[in-house]
Amino acid sequence: MKGRVTIPTDVDIIKETKKIMKLWGADAVRDCDGTDMPKEIEELDAKIYATYYTTRKDNAWAKKNPDEVQQMYVMTDFHMADDSVLRINLMEGLHKDLLKVNDHDDIKRWWEVMDRTLGRSLGSKEWHYEDGEVVIKAKKYHEYTVSFLAYIIWDPVHMYNAVTNGWKDFEKQITFDVRQPKTHEYSMKRLRKFLENHPKVDVIRFTTFFHQFTLIFDELARQKYVDWYGYSASVSPYILDLFEKEVGYRFRPEYIIDQGYMNNTYRVPSKEYFDFIDFQRREVTKLAKEMVDIVHEYGKEAMMFLGDHWIGIEPYMDDFKTIGLDAVVGSVGNGQTLRLISDIKGVEYTEGRLLPYFFPDTFHPGGDPVKEAMKNWITARRAILRVPVDRIGYGGYLKLTLDFPDFIEYAKLVCDEFRELYKNVKGCRAYSFKKVAVLSSWGRYKAWGNHMVHHAIYHKENEAYAGVIESLSGAPFDVSFISFDDIIEDSDILKNFDVIINIGDAQTGQCGGRYWKDEMVLSAVREFICSGGGFIGIGEPSGYPYQGRILQLATQLGVELENGFTLGRGKYNTEVTPHFITEGMDGDIDFGDRLHQIYALEGTDILAKKGKFVELAANECENGRCVYISGLPYSLANTRLLYRAILWASHDEENIHKWFGSNENVEVNAYPENNKFCVVNNTYNEQKSTIYKGDKSSFDIVLAPNEIKWFEIEGK
Amino acid sequence: MKGRVTIPTDVDIIKETKKIMKLWGADAVRDCDGTDMPKEIEELDAKIYATYYTTRKDNAWAKKNPDEVQQMYVMTDFHMADDSVLRINLMEGLHKDLLKVNDHDDIKRWWEVMDRTLGRSLGSKEWHYEDGEVVIKAKKYHEYTVSFLAYIIWDPVHMYNAVTNGWKDFEKQITFDVRQPKTHEYSMKRLRKFLENHPKVDVIRFTTFFHQFTLIFDELARQKYVDWYGYSASVSPYILDLFEKEVGYRFRPEYIIDQGYMNNTYRVPSKEYFDFIDFQRREVTKLAKEMVDIVHEYGKEAMMFLGDHWIGIEPYMDDFKTIGLDAVVGSVGNGQTLRLISDIKGVEYTEGRLLPYFFPDTFHPGGDPVKEAMKNWITARRAILRVPVDRIGYGGYLKLTLDFPDFIEYAKLVCDEFRELYKNVKGCRAYSFKKVAVLSSWGRYKAWGNHMVHHAIYHKENEAYAGVIESLSGAPFDVSFISFDDIIEDSDILKNFDVIINIGDAQTGQCGGRYWKDEMVLSAVREFICSGGGFIGIGEPSGYPYQGRILQLATQLGVELENGFTLGRGKYNTEVTPHFITEGMDGDIDFGDRLHQIYALEGTDILAKKGKFVELAANECENGRCVYISGLPYSLANTRLLYRAILWASHDEENIHKWFGSNENVEVNAYPENNKFCVVNNTYNEQKSTIYKGDKSSFDIVLAPNEIKWFEIEGK
Repeated sequence: MKGRVTIPTDVDIIKETKKIMKLWGADAVRDCDGTDMPKEIEELDAKIYATYYTTRKDNAWAKKNPDEVQQMYVMTDFHMADDSVLRINLMEGLHKDLLKVNDHDDIKRWWEVMDRTLGRSLGSKEWHYEDGEVVIKAKKYHEYTVSFLAYIIWDPVHMYNAVTNGWKDFEKQITFDVRQPKTHEYSMKRLRKFLENHPKVDVIRFTTFFHQFTLIFDELARQKYVDWYGYSASVSPYILDLFEKEVGYRFRPEYIIDQGYMNNTYRVPSKEYFDFIDFQRREVTKLAKEMVDIVHEYGKEAMMFLGDHWIGIEPYMDDFKTIGLDAVVGSVGNGQTLRLISDIKGVEYTEGRLLPYFFPDTFHPGGDPVKEAMKNWITARRAILRVPVDRIGYGGYLKLTLDFPDFIEYAKLVCDEFRELYKNVKGCRAYSFKKVAVLSSWGRYKAWGNHMVHHAIYHKENEAYAGVIESLSGAPFDVSFISFDDIIEDSDILKNFDVIINIGDAQTGQCGGRYWKDEMVLSAVREFICSGGGFIGIGEPSGYPYQGRILQLATQLGVELENGFTLGRGKYNTEVTPHFITEGMDGDIDFGDRLHQIYALEGTDILAKKGKFVELAANECENGRCVYISGLPYSLANTRLLYRAILWASHDEENIHKWFGSNENVEVNAYPENNKFCVVNNTYNEQKSTIYKGDKSSFDIVLAPNEIKWFEIEGK
Repeated sequence: MKGRVTIPTDVDIIKETKKIMKLWGADAVRDCDGTDMPKEIEELDAKIYATYYTTRKDNAWAKKNPDEVQQMYVMTDFHMADDSVLRINLMEGLHKDLLKVNDHDDIKRWWEVMDRTLGRSLGSKEWHYEDGEVVIKAKKYHEYTVSFLAYIIWDPVHMYNAVTNGWKDFEKQITFDVRQPKTHEYSMKRLRKFLENHPKVDVIRFTTFFHQFTLIFDELARQKYVDWYGYSASVSPYILDLFEKEVGYRFRPEYIIDQGYMNNTYRVPSKEYFDFIDFQRREVTKLAKEMVDIVHEYGKEAMMFLGDHWIGIEPYMDDFKTIGLDAVVGSVGNGQTLRLISDIKGVEYTEGRLLPYFFPDTFHPGGDPVKEAMKNWITARRAILRVPVDRIGYGGYLKLTLDFPDFIEYAKLVCDEFRELYKNVKGCRAYSFKKVAVLSSWGRYKAWGNHMVHHAIYHKENEAYAGVIESLSGAPFDVSFISFDDIIEDSDILKNFDVIINIGDAQTGQCGGRYWKDEMVLSAVREFICSGGGFIGIGEPSGYPYQGRILQLATQLGVELENGFTLGRGKYNTEVTPHFITEGMDGDIDFGDRLHQIYALEGTDILAKKGKFVELAANECENGRCVYISGLPYSLANTRLLYRAILWASHDEENIHKWFGSNENVEVNAYPENNKFCVVNNTYNEQKSTIYKGDKSSFDIVLAPNEIKWFEIEGK
């Protein structure tokens, strides 16, 4: 078997590359991060990918056009005035090699000094700027912040790599802004030149387009702020003028700064922020299309890396398709990051870069790359079996693998297994039991995401969101991500789904915040439930303190959050009862570390609790069914729990023994269109299970560690 | 020794009463709960207390005047409309013997039907009442509640006693409303008649005055709602008309109902609610004075029981003194309930009813009343040593003690010890190191309280508040309770204190909620700190999400709460450092069960943490010092921790070895005016300690379990 695999290479291992290409069946090679594409590679008998950076690696241009260096909005820390004059040093806490204050443009127009004690924006006569400091006519004991524009004089990813790897004697790459007029024009020529200079290259791999996600370092070069989804590094007076023209109202830095929270995914986005990212998306899309068209002009493919300079690229929004990309490639850390790539529509193919990267952090004496690869493959495979990427690949320095023959052998197995399962599942839909929608204030904008620090990394505090999304990434359901605005626009959208899931802490963007006091949202969701829909709430679902409820769906969920306001109420529904959802879930279920003070209303079935608080509950509301779960970090046991909850919530207990393994470590996926089904062992140990087929007939099976077995659907 | 002790008695144990009176040195007797005052008791050689109920024990009157039966506001549960008509049965979930719907008065005026989905009060044409149900023209999928008036046709305390003790064959006592015109007039005559019929009685003990705190039972006679501080059972159209006249705006049931939360102490009170309780306080005070005056007219003393029918009686507000009471008596469950009584000003004397009550729940075969008595005495004594009550006593059925000679002997020791320490501490101020103020939105209204379910009972969720108040009740500080309104009225109030303490969850009444976004409050507190004051925040102090901060004093406290909004920020201040506050605090400190996600800002000293979150931190801010503590359930170790925190916050580390025991289980109190000091063992075991005197000279001591030793202050 051959094909569907990309490997990295470098000029000094051409011979070994050929050997590994053959062993793994690779049909494409790419240049390594931080190298140039050498001729020797271009001569290989393979599809050739060349990495292309639109915004850096051209300091000559950047230095000649300092006014078109990229910019970001930054907010200083809070400063309390202890006198009638307060001086705030803007660069305090910021790395001087990374950022430079932009006092070139009209600071009174583009900066904002906030009295945070009053929540008031200061007038232009109440402050001025001198010697790196903003000097404020202050009210004693009030606290102030300054929001200002800064030039990004060192590309943050370049800085990260330099600091992490201790680089010495190199030039710091300055980030120029392709969206500014001069650089725009220049960049198109630069791209053409690159294309002309690399005739043998087949695929231009953009990394990504124009604006790096928010990444700031402090004076000690420590990560000060990171937001993979942030848009704060995509601004400039030039762009903001365009924004104002489009939306028809005056721009305020606070729309981006957001009290210093920078509109991260925990925040419920404001209308203005949505306006801004919509605007950026449309503008970036247009410009990206311009570049992609040029690539096509030269008869090459255009591939986009998902991440890094991806502000404005929203692969799940409709106009993404208009860019005309041939492919998207991204790093696969687990199931959800696989789906983040494979669910993208409007490209010819998708490619998943598996872990580990061939970097010295794993490939060093004593390192165990096989272990990492197995862990990666086992989670990615769950998702591939639902919606496959079209190719897989590896990144880093191929040379480093040469000392790890075990890894080379294991990677061969992965490549072969990928091709086998791709053959079996491609071109037909994996059998789905239910249509499930994850409801948040971000909706499609953050499909499969909404919780990642960056790639596959999540905050422990958000393990419930990460856990559910990971479970869903390999579960036999059609998964959609919808927003409250989608409901407000057309509440019929809910009719497309069997089960709605809402996850997160009260008042967060994941959960929904103020949207939960919107009459239209509440009525639509309640109608959905009462008409027979399923609703699964995790954490503090529908949480927004308003009119006597913390959880706005308390009546429907049958549980409410105790924040002290209801301590005086008698609570007599406290007994745990057996239930379909917990059937066969032996031992303690791991609901995670977060303690939500949830109690059950009368009539609700409590399925699990800790101390006096509810961890799992089920409630019928008219024709619908609701499930409350306090938390659900990812595990195979919790994946099974969620599966049972979804089946119960959609009144489908009777089909539990359909395409099902009695052992929670074993999953079954069916492909009726191809007359195939597979049984997968998702662990590193041997597993036994009874396997139920689509007609509920069953057989017993023993699976080797990690094994996947394929069968025909008999009698069809 | 004799005197300062009151005991209960009953007609059938006159002989035994005399014996115990002599043994314990009792000089007063009281009738038992639920009995009448018999002649035989009145003949005893003692001061005679007679319990008097103003609002019940006269069903003839109550039945003749059903329109003047007491009333309360009740809110139904939330009901979702699944049609265009919604019917809500008002008595659903309420005990029919306790409450009766008042449809006698104008329901369109005094009831309120709320669309809780819109937060809208329905117009009078949108609903009507029939057959016990409110019928609403509803919007499908909206949720509704009805706030209505109900007659209290069975006194809730009487019901509680009847249900708890399984009484049979008795008449349910109806609660009449002394504040209504007919009953007002009748009640004064009734009181006079009682006084005339009991010439030998010396003290009329009111239980208490007119309105029972909120206590509701459900259909199964289970406690449905309780609030010891609630005012919802003090309403009637008659009274509310008066209220409207006084405040000059229209009354709304929602002012009392408060979304169903009934203005419990976790709620930040609204202006209207403060208006209402101020009004009630003034009116109740006036009427109570009328009764007290009558008692005085008959040459008797008037004593008030603290609790039960005490709505409108606010012993810490200035006009309480105008009632002219001779005494206050209350149950003492611990130090804070002792101080709740002993700190009351404007009465001749205070009396503490010690535990256990002589009830069968303790005094039964196998019961251990001595153990309970010791536990009670050891906590009460800490507080008595600071501000003594003038008398102690017991309640219940004396007869029950006769089978417990150990208890009779132990009670003798307590009575003797009380008299000894009263002699030593009365009439002079215990030495105070600092002036400490507890800052909440309730202030003096809930001095020593603000957290009790009722008497000495607190919710586990609120153990930090209960713990700190208990620690303070016996600590060598002057303790005040101030409100944010006090600060807004005159910020100079803060100059009276060395240390301000703020305790509680964000957005609660204990913590302060919206007051923390008030510019005047923030400026005043910050000025207090910056000028050298100490601030101790416990739980989520100054918590109110606003303008980029959750804790509004984050800059001063040096810590902030993580609710997800700041997960993307680098946090590098994570190391625990040694500090004066934790010096000698060996082993793990018990910060309680609550997890507050608190992290330290740069520069703050972290003194203890759990996982990645801060439990204890110290920060200097200009000339002031702030301490953050995540929780502080009551213990002697935590009392010591708080003591050290207060000394550090007020820059007084150098005086740590002054009136101080090196052993945290041993406390020292000094009375310079009397040239005395005492050393107390607060445990049931022998304790050794070095004792430091006022001049920091020291000596070693061994104390027997529970022992208190008195010394002269030499060299004075």
